[in-house]
Amino acid sequence: MLKDIAYNEMSKEMLEQLQKGAFLTVKGNDEMNTMTIGWGSIGFIWNKPIFMVAVRYSRYTYELLEKTDEFTVSVPLSKDMKKELAICGTKSKREIDKFKECNLTAEKGKAVDTPIIGECELHYECKVVYKQAMEPGTIDKNIRDSKYSNNDFHVLYYGEIVASYIKE
Amino acid sequence: MLKDIAYNEMSKEMLEQLQKGAFLTVKGNDEMNTMTIGWGSIGFIWNKPIFMVAVRYSRYTYELLEKTDEFTVSVPLSKDMKKELAICGTKSKREIDKFKECNLTAEKGKAVDTPIIGECELHYECKVVYKQAMEPGTIDKNIRDSKYSNNDFHVLYYGEIVASYIKE
Repeated sequence: MLKDIAYNEMSKEMLEQLQKGAFLTVKGNDEMNTMTIGWGSIGFIWNKPIFMVAVRYSRYTYELLEKTDEFTVSVPLSKDMKKELAICGTKSKREIDKFKECNLTAEKGKAVDTPIIGECELHYECKVVYKQAMEPGTIDKNIRDSKYSNNDFHVLYYGEIVASYIKE
Repeated sequence: MLKDIAYNEMSKEMLEQLQKGAFLTVKGNDEMNTMTIGWGSIGFIWNKPIFMVAVRYSRYTYELLEKTDEFTVSVPLSKDMKKELAICGTKSKREIDKFKECNLTAEKGKAVDTPIIGECELHYECKVVYKQAMEPGTIDKNIRDSKYSNNDFHVLYYGEIVASYIKE
């Protein structure tokens, strides 16, 4: 059962888990992929609830996000998904089918065409309302040196949260 | 007394109140100002806790943020500060001294030189690690038409949260 919650209801728990990993799922044309994210933000911008995710140019997910304006974020809460998060954070769809490899279930979402990861408890369905490639010139020098020495910058995708719920 | 909390501890309550208003305080050189914000986000990016605020070019606060890399966000929780938020959201420092007009107390922060609003309970002290002017071309058309018809875009300031606490 999918129990609707306010977009901010579980923000504390989501941010707690995000540092350990959550799943960003994207479907562009008929291709689907999920990847582990450890960064992101939740907020209220343009009078809308917004989930922001950051995807590097090098990612297959970046290619998919050029073909769609949707994404979902699936967050494990009580369930231990360390192994799945590790695989989906290091392997590329270009090499393996992560859903098969990790026994992940792509389940139908509520408000978007992009599936959610059925094994997780907390879900956000989002429609991109704004995106922007990072501007190299204005990043703190320490961050630039430690995270972007190879110039593989992030594109920031701001998705309106059109559904948020707990899967019980 | 200032009681430290984890950056995400009160995120649900902060986002709840943000829609009704919070105070963004900035001090550049020897000039100080506070303004009401209704938008923003909290997250974990670049391995850091981040508070993102959006300030339009037309704002005096924008000018100040060009002179400093710090800001604070002060959030009323139980206290009714509707009147103060209304004034600080509609008047400019160019016209009135908001601290005097609203009886707001600029109190010393913990980790930055920028003061906090002493009347509020929840506080975030931030150091800007990234900023970026919005890119007009990639905004959702409805948002662009309703929020930016005059091209007064926001600059997005991503501040590392260097202190977060409740004032008791």
